[in-house]
Amino acid sequence: MKGEGLIIVNGELADSLNVMDRGLQYGDGIFRTLKADSGQLRWWNDQYRKLSDDCQVLGIHCPAEPLLKAEADSVASMQGIGVIKIIITRGVGQRGYRTSPDASSTRIVMGFVGSHMIEGPVEARWCNLRLSRQPRLAGIKHLNRLENVLARSEWNDPAIAEGLLMNEAGQVIGGTMTNLFMIEKDTLVTPDLSNCGVAGVARARLLRAAAKHGQSVKTEAISPERLLQSDQILLCNSLIGIWRVEKLENTVWPDNGWADKLKCWLNEDH
Amino acid sequence: MKGEGLIIVNGELADSLNVMDRGLQYGDGIFRTLKADSGQLRWWNDQYRKLSDDCQVLGIHCPAEPLLKAEADSVASMQGIGVIKIIITRGVGQRGYRTSPDASSTRIVMGFVGSHMIEGPVEARWCNLRLSRQPRLAGIKHLNRLENVLARSEWNDPAIAEGLLMNEAGQVIGGTMTNLFMIEKDTLVTPDLSNCGVAGVARARLLRAAAKHGQSVKTEAISPERLLQSDQILLCNSLIGIWRVEKLENTVWPDNGWADKLKCWLNEDH
Repeated sequence: MKGEGLIIVNGELADSLNVMDRGLQYGDGIFRTLKADSGQLRWWNDQYRKLSDDCQVLGIHCPAEPLLKAEADSVASMQGIGVIKIIITRGVGQRGYRTSPDASSTRIVMGFVGSHMIEGPVEARWCNLRLSRQPRLAGIKHLNRLENVLARSEWNDPAIAEGLLMNEAGQVIGGTMTNLFMIEKDTLVTPDLSNCGVAGVARARLLRAAAKHGQSVKTEAISPERLLQSDQILLCNSLIGIWRVEKLENTVWPDNGWADKLKCWLNEDH
Repeated sequence: MKGEGLIIVNGELADSLNVMDRGLQYGDGIFRTLKADSGQLRWWNDQYRKLSDDCQVLGIHCPAEPLLKAEADSVASMQGIGVIKIIITRGVGQRGYRTSPDASSTRIVMGFVGSHMIEGPVEARWCNLRLSRQPRLAGIKHLNRLENVLARSEWNDPAIAEGLLMNEAGQVIGGTMTNLFMIEKDTLVTPDLSNCGVAGVARARLLRAAAKHGQSVKTEAISPERLLQSDQILLCNSLIGIWRVEKLENTVWPDNGWADKLKCWLNEDH
């Protein structure tokens, strides 16, 4: 990282990983990206729960919470660190897809200086790539991210902050690195992610806050036509918080106040 | 590797990789596994062509053939090395899915002692996992292999050598680590891989040999019922060559001579 950050691999300062790690060989692992504010890990409990849930689905041994928290705290305590990324892989393995039940997972905690995320509102575009349907992996933030890489490579215009992705059926799933909500009158609507996409922590927090506030919510298939007719489009993740989409290709939305409301909800304790 | 083999990363003896490599971060790379016989790389020209083609589809800079060949030769020349695995990743990157057009790819050449592959005939089973449809990645041997990992984890019985996979539509695609052919009377039939699966080098060699010998071939969708009624099922990859499937769940096939014929074709110069 050379002055730009800090990496801890299995508890040791390191900038390299065993080549035989299954994270490299097969993308056999999961990750999380979280914000650090002056040494504090934002939404740690939610982040750890999601990391633990994702490990469980893939049968990867999840590091104990106090151990991982201590390592993440230690990285976050370094001057200027604004973003923490945690990768958990199934660990070092032999050649071949077969997993060993007694393998020790590998834990990598990375700290990045600054956060460099814009505040919004933002402009978005449609991506041509269609996300594949895989219920066994849907929702999980795993290391098989070539679809996201290909989608992100569809544009270079720095004025466009995010690309929106559809599944094979042409239903909206979310952004390349964000979850999507839309407002229809007084209802908050977000895509069903049971067959593809990543169900992020910011999305989960918003859904929890909505329930607490008695907000009506629908989680269902959303067509692009319906999205374009919505009253507001909002994108979220753990780093940016909420982005209001003010422009999607040729359609423009004025600010109707929902972005600020959801920003408050996102940061409430609940 | 500690006495079990040898690894060269970007031309240097090494057993570790930069944590920021996109191969780990996103599975953003491709790989090949090939057999080494007494220092000779089997089917090198085909292997390199496939590696180069896969890199091109993903926009990854492919190492020059003489450089990669020299490195693979050097690993293969070590006493006892029977398997070479080559990984090419998009290289070290910044955080985020966006690729940099001027990134140097990472090349990893691994040598493994022995080959440990059984000769066949083999017993196979069906896997429950269904392969997702993604035409943008189909055929490519990329590093996003969680589907294969999950499929391979469905059985532990060492008597079962391979699991067969279907796509979402319930059509047969191939094994977790092999391509599939079946014999129907005098016709060789192999699944269409334009929407999922890996199109391996052994499969390509067999298709080329079949064309040379005037063998009738069909590349099309294959239902499990049709597979079970076929006259022979054969699996192939670059390490095992050809496996005749003598038993798939409760169905048994006698040897009808096609396995030996295809073994000869596979090793012909063409």
